[in-house]
Amino acid sequence: MQIYKGNFLFTPQRESFRVIEQGYVCVQNGVIVHVGTSLPRPLPPEAEVIDFGDCLVIPAMNDMHVHASQYRNQGISMDLELLTWLNTYTFPEEAKFADTNYARRIYRRFIHDLWRMGTMRAAVFATIHHESTRLLMKLFQEAGMGAVVGKVCMDRNCPEELCETVREAIRANEALIAEFNDPQGLVRPIITPRFIPSCSPEMLKACGQLASKHGIAVQSHLSENRKEIETVKSLEPSSTCYGDAYLRYNLFGQTPTLMAHCVYSSDEEIELMRRQGVMAVHCPTSNLNLSSGMAAMHTLIERGVRVALGSDISGGHDLNMFRVIVYAIQVSKAIKAVQGIEPQLSLPEAFWCATKSAGSFFGQVGSFEPGYEFDALVIDDHELNFDRYTLEQRLERFIYLGDDRNIIHRFCRGKEISEPQV
Amino acid sequence: MQIYKGNFLFTPQRESFRVIEQGYVCVQNGVIVHVGTSLPRPLPPEAEVIDFGDCLVIPAMNDMHVHASQYRNQGISMDLELLTWLNTYTFPEEAKFADTNYARRIYRRFIHDLWRMGTMRAAVFATIHHESTRLLMKLFQEAGMGAVVGKVCMDRNCPEELCETVREAIRANEALIAEFNDPQGLVRPIITPRFIPSCSPEMLKACGQLASKHGIAVQSHLSENRKEIETVKSLEPSSTCYGDAYLRYNLFGQTPTLMAHCVYSSDEEIELMRRQGVMAVHCPTSNLNLSSGMAAMHTLIERGVRVALGSDISGGHDLNMFRVIVYAIQVSKAIKAVQGIEPQLSLPEAFWCATKSAGSFFGQVGSFEPGYEFDALVIDDHELNFDRYTLEQRLERFIYLGDDRNIIHRFCRGKEISEPQV
Repeated sequence: MQIYKGNFLFTPQRESFRVIEQGYVCVQNGVIVHVGTSLPRPLPPEAEVIDFGDCLVIPAMNDMHVHASQYRNQGISMDLELLTWLNTYTFPEEAKFADTNYARRIYRRFIHDLWRMGTMRAAVFATIHHESTRLLMKLFQEAGMGAVVGKVCMDRNCPEELCETVREAIRANEALIAEFNDPQGLVRPIITPRFIPSCSPEMLKACGQLASKHGIAVQSHLSENRKEIETVKSLEPSSTCYGDAYLRYNLFGQTPTLMAHCVYSSDEEIELMRRQGVMAVHCPTSNLNLSSGMAAMHTLIERGVRVALGSDISGGHDLNMFRVIVYAIQVSKAIKAVQGIEPQLSLPEAFWCATKSAGSFFGQVGSFEPGYEFDALVIDDHELNFDRYTLEQRLERFIYLGDDRNIIHRFCRGKEISEPQV
Repeated sequence: MQIYKGNFLFTPQRESFRVIEQGYVCVQNGVIVHVGTSLPRPLPPEAEVIDFGDCLVIPAMNDMHVHASQYRNQGISMDLELLTWLNTYTFPEEAKFADTNYARRIYRRFIHDLWRMGTMRAAVFATIHHESTRLLMKLFQEAGMGAVVGKVCMDRNCPEELCETVREAIRANEALIAEFNDPQGLVRPIITPRFIPSCSPEMLKACGQLASKHGIAVQSHLSENRKEIETVKSLEPSSTCYGDAYLRYNLFGQTPTLMAHCVYSSDEEIELMRRQGVMAVHCPTSNLNLSSGMAAMHTLIERGVRVALGSDISGGHDLNMFRVIVYAIQVSKAIKAVQGIEPQLSLPEAFWCATKSAGSFFGQVGSFEPGYEFDALVIDDHELNFDRYTLEQRLERFIYLGDDRNIIHRFCRGKEISEPQV
């Protein structure tokens, strides 16, 4: 058993932080067995106490929508909107991943930087390429970090070199599932039709069948951009909304499902997400950078939809999920200021989105409660504190002002994760 | 003469970067005398060539609206809107600056961190206190960095300990002007009525008279928040708009004037700013954090208003002006997505706002053109570049992803500025 001592802050409920000053979290086989201000009695003889002093200890970040294959394009080329941006900048970049040497270089850097930012689990888009997707999964395994990784499926409205046949998509997915689908595994496959404009009905059907056959999760994009939604309407005229189109192909909650963006989800689509248990992944930086709009995340929460946050590299520019938390709060305030409707997302709510709410996609992850896997960051924030602040203010300042320099230890499923090789 | 060699990027016009790969900038007595891809001929015998290798060299940042006295509150307490936020969090903090020891500690840290972020000039609000304002100006002088620093004037709608008489305000301002008003000085006073709700007509009149009498610049807040604007309407019922109220007191362009926020400026107010040469300071982070709204900065530029950017600590959370540049672009895109009206601010435009446009408030500052003072940052971005990027893409990535770790030299008026004492 490992016993960690420190200042623990986490969100068992979304409304507020639980703050345990100089408390203890005990971990056995990666799972939390005791949380409190005192040590468990009797103390097991082999217990090892690790004291983090005055540091803050918080749940690690979960990035629930990120394109590893776009990492090279992070922070550039954000002058266009979604559909032209995809064709102009993104598809040409993704085509390079036919080369596993190129993929290895970019994916190593990507995983390294996820680690650096304190993200211990992620829901990742690779590309259509089987070999480089497999490599990405292997690299996550080597790093000891958690991920669902999707081989992207697409067969229309894309350049020839990113177009595959339905048969190729099925074969590659079956191979990845056979190799990685250990239910206890930290790294697992996820069925990933890019989005409806890129997938023929046959491809969508095959993806839904794969997911249902193997009981595997699904991720895709939903209602991100007005032109995209019009395109989907013309491609799937009989669907009542974008989400309904996925539903018809068994890609909307029939197995655990992540849908990124949800900027323009109608009441009907929101209700469908709630009913199907679909997790909406809010990507505020990307929605701003690509002029997509602003998603009313608080409204989704109030209507009972499961929520999470995503960096959405490279539509998003920042891999640091603490910054994404800040943007999520700011976007909710902007909607409030402009439209007067959205109650603002509080700091604990946004933190909960990125920890306990997102973590539920991986099981019991994202909180410091008995039964939860110990995914944690140790934050040394002494350089930020030139005056006296409460523990909660210290966390707030770390989230708003801090960066990777303040993160001095990272744990995933109870194991300390060392710096991955670049 | 100093001759700097490197990759120079700057914005002589707002539409695009001028990029000089492996070029030369020659500086004499702090002022640029030559810019180009070759050395000036004949080379003066005493010329010293400093080679920055493959680094980027860019104009230093100008932060045109920042409350030094709120630095302790950076990154906390952003759950309220402007007027209640002022009363609940901000005024109690500012009251502490009656104690010059407290002021010294906070102001030292503030100047240190401005330096760290690459901001070489700033337009700063202190507090009502003469002694601690004077101290702040002295600390800027010691650091060698440029600033206009305002002793805040206020005499109504504020706690007793922040209330002064008009006479006290005049006396303190006269003393600061006498001490610091060297026209060549890097650190100069600026007349700073907090905003109309905090200043009686007598105070506003005295501020306008002080500014005109000494030919000194003015800074204040304008049309930041809807409730604030209503308050101003009721306090100055005969004015046609908020800006017109300042104008009547000789505080709106009669001398060089900075007005922060301008979120809700009407067409009339915009025209008044243009006509009077008032510089609008866009504070996108603060406007989001305090739920103020989103300012249509591109519209102001198109209508011929002078513009700049401000971190507005502690309504804003980030002292790093490169992040403020990113937010300015994102806010313009959000307005475009929501209202369809604002053309998006491009990266060169936003960069120009923070450099050449803002710098014009200090004279010829913010560009690498002959006659401009050499305010510069040397950026070592090699850690950001794990693939080949153009120089412009490298700058874009530094702005979006980089931080103070990448800034390896800082110059203000030709002099390299070393790390200020904390």
